Amino acid sequence: MDRFDLLHKLAVENDNKLILLIMDGLGDFPMETGGLTALEAADTPNLDRMATEGSTGFNIPVRRGIAPGSGPAHLGLFGYDPLQFDVGRGVLSALGIDFDLQPRDLAARGNFATVDKDGIITDRRAGRIPTELGAKLARKLQEGTSLPGYEIFVLPEKEYRFVFILRGEGLSEALSETDPLQTGKLPLPVLPLDDSSEAKHSAELVNDWVKQARALLKDERPANSVNLRGFAMDPALRQFPEIYKLRAAAIAQYPMYRGVSKLVGMDVQPSGKSIADEFSVLESIWEQYDFFFLHVKPTDSRGEDGNFEAKVKIIEEVDAQLPRLLALQPSVVVITGDHSTPAAMRSHSWHPVPLLFWGQFAMPDDVKSFGERAVSHGYLGHLHSTDIMPLLMAHAGRLERFGA
Amino acid sequence: MDRFDLLHKLAVENDNKLILLIMDGLGDFPMETGGLTALEAADTPNLDRMATEGSTGFNIPVRRGIAPGSGPAHLGLFGYDPLQFDVGRGVLSALGIDFDLQPRDLAARGNFATVDKDGIITDRRAGRIPTELGAKLARKLQEGTSLPGYEIFVLPEKEYRFVFILRGEGLSEALSETDPLQTGKLPLPVLPLDDSSEAKHSAELVNDWVKQARALLKDERPANSVNLRGFAMDPALRQFPEIYKLRAAAIAQYPMYRGVSKLVGMDVQPSGKSIADEFSVLESIWEQYDFFFLHVKPTDSRGEDGNFEAKVKIIEEVDAQLPRLLALQPSVVVITGDHSTPAAMRSHSWHPVPLLFWGQFAMPDDVKSFGERAVSHGYLGHLHSTDIMPLLMAHAGRLERFGA
Repeated sequence: MDRFDLLHKLAVENDNKLILLIMDGLGDFPMETGGLTALEAADTPNLDRMATEGSTGFNIPVRRGIAPGSGPAHLGLFGYDPLQFDVGRGVLSALGIDFDLQPRDLAARGNFATVDKDGIITDRRAGRIPTELGAKLARKLQEGTSLPGYEIFVLPEKEYRFVFILRGEGLSEALSETDPLQTGKLPLPVLPLDDSSEAKHSAELVNDWVKQARALLKDERPANSVNLRGFAMDPALRQFPEIYKLRAAAIAQYPMYRGVSKLVGMDVQPSGKSIADEFSVLESIWEQYDFFFLHVKPTDSRGEDGNFEAKVKIIEEVDAQLPRLLALQPSVVVITGDHSTPAAMRSHSWHPVPLLFWGQFAMPDDVKSFGERAVSHGYLGHLHSTDIMPLLMAHAGRLERFGA
Repeated sequence: MDRFDLLHKLAVENDNKLILLIMDGLGDFPMETGGLTALEAADTPNLDRMATEGSTGFNIPVRRGIAPGSGPAHLGLFGYDPLQFDVGRGVLSALGIDFDLQPRDLAARGNFATVDKDGIITDRRAGRIPTELGAKLARKLQEGTSLPGYEIFVLPEKEYRFVFILRGEGLSEALSETDPLQTGKLPLPVLPLDDSSEAKHSAELVNDWVKQARALLKDERPANSVNLRGFAMDPALRQFPEIYKLRAAAIAQYPMYRGVSKLVGMDVQPSGKSIADEFSVLESIWEQYDFFFLHVKPTDSRGEDGNFEAKVKIIEEVDAQLPRLLALQPSVVVITGDHSTPAAMRSHSWHPVPLLFWGQFAMPDDVKSFGERAVSHGYLGHLHSTDIMPLLMAHAGRLERFGA
């Protein structure tokens, strides 16, 4: 039986409320031999109390050894195996700029590039032009290109990156990319990757647009060309509220997380600017939903910066908000990260992420604090991120018995 | 996405070197109530220091509860799920005698047997004839049988066992076996198991050979017949160096391990006679490879003998060599076994195998020694043997991020 069919079949509605609190990039690694992780170093009386009262363990995002991007990592937390449900790069890029992607839009990640007089790529990132110049050039392409019968969106991302979206009928994502992925080569034409008329037609449209874009940019320096990668459409995922029979709200401030939540059908809330704001939003919508996904970004950002102390402070800031969350009397609270972002590594890593289940039926274990070494002794052991939602549902009395 | 496709896609090359040190049958069980395991009893200052500095846990070979043979257990360690990649018994037998198996060879495991005057099997193992007699009879079959257009190899294994290999064009492994697996029955004819002309032709060839072999043996006592089992060809496994982008060397003294390493495409080294010899080989080839599989056999042999003290001594002998290994400054070292061989059981068992990851990004846990009870508290928890290679790659910075 399909996993979602099973969960949907067993899911029942009740009044219990569920919170999934994600501190992005929570997992950590000591900065020096014999040192503590950020989570171990942080002063977290509330997390430690919840760890004492509840169950702890580790969450493995995607698979052992895999350091995931935020898109696949969050799909896993929502119960969608990221190796099974592949959200293309173009869609993630569109979500990452808060673009309101429609089911039939074709999205791609665009790069400004430098080519020589023969059209050969000399810099795939156009010297990493400043974001302001990237935005100006994206506007130029937005205003100067057209494809009859189709709407075009050219939206700046960061530096040399932009998002290209084509809107209209009969589009396909089965397209090859223009970027040869190395310098010294000519860009490639976009080719259809299957025999459908949609793929053929989409390839023609995109090649036409690329030609127009390059003509418009030819006198710019250094960004005198473009490449498109990762053509993708909304993967039409089975919707989260339907699978789990939950009215689901997402509280997140960063576009990517708002976007992924929207892809799975959660109601994405206006979520303020600060961590405290997010808890205020939680309070304000408490009566209207059953499930609350609360996303805290700066743990990851400070990890990416390599700023251990700042990461510690963010964790302490979240901890200080937890009494507000508990005052709402949720049935079950899960606290973890989507992946690890050790400040010592300044990047996402594969390290399993500390995981905490708190609620009436969360088995208390011997663990009295929330940290990497402590939860190694926890009752939950190591589980895949896709197991978190079924466990959350179970702890809230929302899954019926399987079989007689 | 296929697992190997994913790993290959994420794999990158760098200068970091990886060591997978396998003490065969390492996992153990106390000889008496309240006793220690061999690994716990052994005096292992170097292993204990590495456990203190690194991460520990358990490696589950194949699946929970399954006691594997050496072939499937090693495939798992190399990342090949042994339930998915089935290396047939004939191939394992050929590898086990160091036979240089070619891609189109058809191999089978042969047994000398005793039959009565009506051809009914009275002893499937011919009274477990001595190895010397088995070798003499194998030579007799080698010299006295022929199949036009094909090369035949009949090579002694141990006691009543031999390996039969047929070399030539158009062979198939889709063949039934001659051994009815009980006495009091007639041997079975070999039948093709699919509709291919290769299977039909192979069945005819093998039946012809079996007839010749039995005719040659009819006056021998007790080994007056043969049976063939486990017809198999090289499974043409996707090659390890290609999947992981690693220059890979195998240091192993026993044919089976050399053979499995060769099947997956490692460069198998002349590996000396002693444990110290193997570490000398490691030193001598250090600059030429990225990945080193180092296989120590006697831990398993002493376990099979039921000789607890001798198993302890072997573990101590390996521990004493570890400073030589660390002096090479590897990036990551994994130490574990392919399965458990408790001296108390004198056989392979299903018990999970202590596992140690050592390296810059191996999270130190609370575990200060390398032994079954100690690593139960480790940061790695229980993982499947097939997860070891992805984790090794990750710890060496050789896997890129998955998705955006």
